[in-house]
Amino acid sequence: MNIINKDDLLYLAGLIDGDGSIVAQMINRPDYVYKYQIRLTVQISQRKKRRHHLEDIRKIIGYGIVRDRGDMSDYVLTETRMVYQFLKQLAPFLRIKQKQANLVIKIIEQLPSSRNSALLFIELCRLADQVAQLNDSKNKEINAKVVEDRLKELKVISND
Amino acid sequence: MNIINKDDLLYLAGLIDGDGSIVAQMINRPDYVYKYQIRLTVQISQRKKRRHHLEDIRKIIGYGIVRDRGDMSDYVLTETRMVYQFLKQLAPFLRIKQKQANLVIKIIEQLPSSRNSALLFIELCRLADQVAQLNDSKNKEINAKVVEDRLKELKVISND
Repeated sequence: MNIINKDDLLYLAGLIDGDGSIVAQMINRPDYVYKYQIRLTVQISQRKKRRHHLEDIRKIIGYGIVRDRGDMSDYVLTETRMVYQFLKQLAPFLRIKQKQANLVIKIIEQLPSSRNSALLFIELCRLADQVAQLNDSKNKEINAKVVEDRLKELKVISND
Repeated sequence: MNIINKDDLLYLAGLIDGDGSIVAQMINRPDYVYKYQIRLTVQISQRKKRRHHLEDIRKIIGYGIVRDRGDMSDYVLTETRMVYQFLKQLAPFLRIKQKQANLVIKIIEQLPSSRNSALLFIELCRLADQVAQLNDSKNKEINAKVVEDRLKELKVISND
């Protein structure tokens, strides 16, 4: 992860406030103790013909990938440590999506502790649901309740 | 129009590159000599529940209006002189929509001369079509060709 200069951070804050996504979602991981992983992602999309702007952003951030889907391209940053380092730099400059960024930062900071506490893990899933809500979306298939119910079913946590 | 500080310009450049529009379109003005007006607009949209962010932007720019349509709100700057003063400050910081901004600046600078030259006016309409094309859209109903044909019909310009 690069140390990003303030001018680029201000520009990227505007771009991500306008057209970017700061996402927290649970994905199936049958081989994990808690059966789910919280995936944190920063994403910026552009028409494929303007893909080079996304390549420029990738160079500024120094990490992430640019991938195509149909006539769109996405810059995607999803390695947790990199999402953390990027959002720690970016969050002070965000005006619209600062809450999402701060929630994702909070989730990542507590992920290591959650490895020893299913209850904390579920709490972090609830924060992920809050991020989704701020994005006007929902963690539809897998929300914190789904994770909680599954961990009760498996008796990882009690049914009380 | 406010003198906008560099931090705000960098942020607004990112926001407008991501989620804003820099638009040039011809509209019917039956009482005008050339029958059409070129309308220049800068617009930023947000869900209505985040309208307050648009109000903040209006305060930074010092001009323009915020209006609602359904569950969306738009910040709209459309007074030609103000669009010019804003884009002259903003353009150096744009990375994705700089061409549109520079074309709109060029159109506005030549608007006074076009009052004495229908041919120049049509040329400016062509620049407006270029702006639309850069925005992945078209000046559908009224493009430069429509204006040209109408002015030929009215014998404001010759048919050669």
